[in-house]
Amino acid sequence: MPSTASKRWPQAIPNGKPRSVLKGDVSKLHTEDLIKILYATHTGMTTDEFDAIVKDWIATAKHPTTGKKYTEMVFQPMLELLDYLRANGFKTFIVSGGGTGFMRAWVEGVYHIPPEQVVGSTFETEFSLVDGKPTLKRMPNFLVNDDKEMKVQEIYERIGRRPIAAFGNSDGDLAMLQWTAAGDGLRLPMYIHHTDDKREWKYDRDSHIGQLNKGLDEAAAKGWPMVDMKADWKRIYP
Amino acid sequence: MPSTASKRWPQAIPNGKPRSVLKGDVSKLHTEDLIKILYATHTGMTTDEFDAIVKDWIATAKHPTTGKKYTEMVFQPMLELLDYLRANGFKTFIVSGGGTGFMRAWVEGVYHIPPEQVVGSTFETEFSLVDGKPTLKRMPNFLVNDDKEMKVQEIYERIGRRPIAAFGNSDGDLAMLQWTAAGDGLRLPMYIHHTDDKREWKYDRDSHIGQLNKGLDEAAAKGWPMVDMKADWKRIYP
Repeated sequence: MPSTASKRWPQAIPNGKPRSVLKGDVSKLHTEDLIKILYATHTGMTTDEFDAIVKDWIATAKHPTTGKKYTEMVFQPMLELLDYLRANGFKTFIVSGGGTGFMRAWVEGVYHIPPEQVVGSTFETEFSLVDGKPTLKRMPNFLVNDDKEMKVQEIYERIGRRPIAAFGNSDGDLAMLQWTAAGDGLRLPMYIHHTDDKREWKYDRDSHIGQLNKGLDEAAAKGWPMVDMKADWKRIYP
Repeated sequence: MPSTASKRWPQAIPNGKPRSVLKGDVSKLHTEDLIKILYATHTGMTTDEFDAIVKDWIATAKHPTTGKKYTEMVFQPMLELLDYLRANGFKTFIVSGGGTGFMRAWVEGVYHIPPEQVVGSTFETEFSLVDGKPTLKRMPNFLVNDDKEMKVQEIYERIGRRPIAAFGNSDGDLAMLQWTAAGDGLRLPMYIHHTDDKREWKYDRDSHIGQLNKGLDEAAAKGWPMVDMKADWKRIYP
């Protein structure tokens, strides 16, 4: 644990161990538990080792209820949209709450977005020479939680341009869509609404993961287009 | 001034005003003075306002001794190298100690490197809605000093690939060149040695700005190629 909490991720992390997730009960997972799990699984190794761990895991791990690999649970319309945008001269980025190093290990193969166009949450790293070999180690200090307002700050800092179009599915994306909408000329801020409890999941205002509440109101008030997954998407997964 | 100093830029900043630079004496400039000047000139405005300020400045400002615009003092061989690399399928990046927002305002026009491929030092920003309009303001908190080991950390975090080739001119670039050299296969870590006091400047081991001391030793020990500007460069400026 860092002795000095980052200003950008100020939550204090109490002592103790994650209480419920190892028993399979994720519903009682608290933020401090999640951070402990992230530190245990995402830090303490070199960046090359971490990349190999994620690649191994993503190649075999399956979702507990669908039985599909996680890379098979991406959205077919999202893949088609990315292809369509790139075919028309757009440069495509992912701006995710997931860790940057975690995302990069697999998104290029799935979304055809190269590492340098993936923006995510940041753990501190430490550079040193180990037996003369330059080594970069991932450290248990969560520097940037790439969510809500921080998504806009990271888009500015890492991309340096305002998006022409941005797509999100939760209140964590609202600031990014507001920032996109406020640009000059034509802009496309769009929400994907999870409405299909048969083919995928259905949730919005009351969900404790991926809550979409303020975003629903803002999209309605501003007239932003909204995807109704059940009604609008012929196919969910590839 | 931030109440909590960033872990990544831990220097405390004493009270008082920059002492000598406004009298034209930059040789006595201390780190704490430099930070005060950076805060005064680089923060306190919106990101759009800052971009306009830099663009205005760079369009007219001239170097006090050469009388040239700063955009005319870039290196012709560097421009040719960037073109050559891009013509051969490389993606080119700038990794600079300069502020990211400052660099981006002018490097695309000069080096043909787009904003998202410019990595520099980071000031904190703050997102808010001002009269309903999303606004990003630059704050006086220096989060990342993109120099030395931090260049490697930022290359990992923002680019996510190890460079095939990297070019530097000071000890601040040494870790980046070591990191580059340590990659698999062919790699090109290269120093540019300022040796031409007639056409440009001559400095290395004893310079208090852009010191090149450890880097000279390491390049010699490892057999890295080194550019001698006076002997090797037919033309310095475009």
